[in-house]
Amino acid sequence: MLSKARIKQIHSLEQKKYRRQEGLFVAEGHKLVGELLTAGHRPVYLCHTTQWEVPSLDSGTLSCPIDIVSEAELKSASLLQHPQQVLALFPLPQWELPHPQTGTERLILALDGVQDPGNLGTICRLADWFGIEDIVCSTETADIFNPKAIQATMGAISRIRVHYTNLHDFLSEASLHSTPIYGTFLDGLNIYERPLTPHGIIVMGNEGKGISHEIETLVTDKLFIPSYPQDRPTTESLNVAMATAITCAEFRRRG
Amino acid sequence: MLSKARIKQIHSLEQKKYRRQEGLFVAEGHKLVGELLTAGHRPVYLCHTTQWEVPSLDSGTLSCPIDIVSEAELKSASLLQHPQQVLALFPLPQWELPHPQTGTERLILALDGVQDPGNLGTICRLADWFGIEDIVCSTETADIFNPKAIQATMGAISRIRVHYTNLHDFLSEASLHSTPIYGTFLDGLNIYERPLTPHGIIVMGNEGKGISHEIETLVTDKLFIPSYPQDRPTTESLNVAMATAITCAEFRRRG
Repeated sequence: MLSKARIKQIHSLEQKKYRRQEGLFVAEGHKLVGELLTAGHRPVYLCHTTQWEVPSLDSGTLSCPIDIVSEAELKSASLLQHPQQVLALFPLPQWELPHPQTGTERLILALDGVQDPGNLGTICRLADWFGIEDIVCSTETADIFNPKAIQATMGAISRIRVHYTNLHDFLSEASLHSTPIYGTFLDGLNIYERPLTPHGIIVMGNEGKGISHEIETLVTDKLFIPSYPQDRPTTESLNVAMATAITCAEFRRRG
Repeated sequence: MLSKARIKQIHSLEQKKYRRQEGLFVAEGHKLVGELLTAGHRPVYLCHTTQWEVPSLDSGTLSCPIDIVSEAELKSASLLQHPQQVLALFPLPQWELPHPQTGTERLILALDGVQDPGNLGTICRLADWFGIEDIVCSTETADIFNPKAIQATMGAISRIRVHYTNLHDFLSEASLHSTPIYGTFLDGLNIYERPLTPHGIIVMGNEGKGISHEIETLVTDKLFIPSYPQDRPTTESLNVAMATAITCAEFRRRG
């Protein structure tokens, strides 16, 4: 039986303010909750319908209060339009910001003001696919623990670390270590004709405004994803998640 | 002054049934409405706030009833959470299905049951970027005139044709003309190591189930987008729009 207080708590966690205050986030659905659990994240609360198949877990992972609920009860708690068998509250993970010098050893993704939670979650899923473990975000970037973002990660959040910091300072320090800093621009150079390193920082910008001027000054390699045919008038741009997909794929293709 | 009947009509067009019945669809926002208008689509109705800047148009394009409305009025009519200055009703375009042999001359995208309207709209935007003019969809694929899909096209719908047909029959006939039919599969061959032609049909599948068995039998080249590192366990997959982005980019990179 789900208490009214619990439903109220879950709904409050739709807001970043309460996520911070309580140090918790909401995860829903077999795939996302399952991946968090099997990765060792321990929920502080979980409710599920009888349909949910509990994954095999280390003992102690599921030592929180658990409610077995009806579909109607789950719907009253859920933040989704179509609730999916299980909902859990997890403590916000504490991730240590990578040292800016890390970009001299491996690829890091940096987000300069990505606003749409769906785009952010999708980028997290892409990072996972392409073996990029750290995403460093400007403080204006959407919160990865926003329910829409976390759901869009499809579980990738159990393997990827997402950091929020002063991106300008982070990149400035990375520059001191001669880290290559890549970014995509409509006036950049054809990505297929540029040398790409297997390490460095790839910056992706805001949906409407792209990479901010402040950050642009720190980019060492301005890239462009050519449209087809290349000489067609481009009033258009690619969605930021699409541009991230193509850019990461190209970095990994080159090895 | 926006009439109640008009508001009711606009809201009914959220449903495919009424879009078909009335032969109309809703477009909102400066960019989408502007691109449809400049491409010559003639609305049957338009309302806008005083903020909207009318684009320069051929005479006659805007010969429909027009309401100048307050932001509150626009909000009562809008299908969006954040209405954007202008809303218009356009006749559903009539597009002739390309001949299946067309795939021997240029690239065509085929969608086998893509369900999410946002993914569909994004794929339409990608097709536009990569100069693919026709998208042939199975009848189970989401409707491109669904408000979420049409908004996600960001205006690309003014340049791209989206068709609905029996995809199996379409591809069967394409096979008779020796059209290469590509598709992405988790057990396909590394896309970067396969020959890709500058013509053919690229099939993308459903979000959860991928390409159906029925369609799979018609695919002549099964491709796979490698993750990184390549030998990592992949319980994961790429979102269909991401896979489409990477696949189309790779076809166009090869020319």
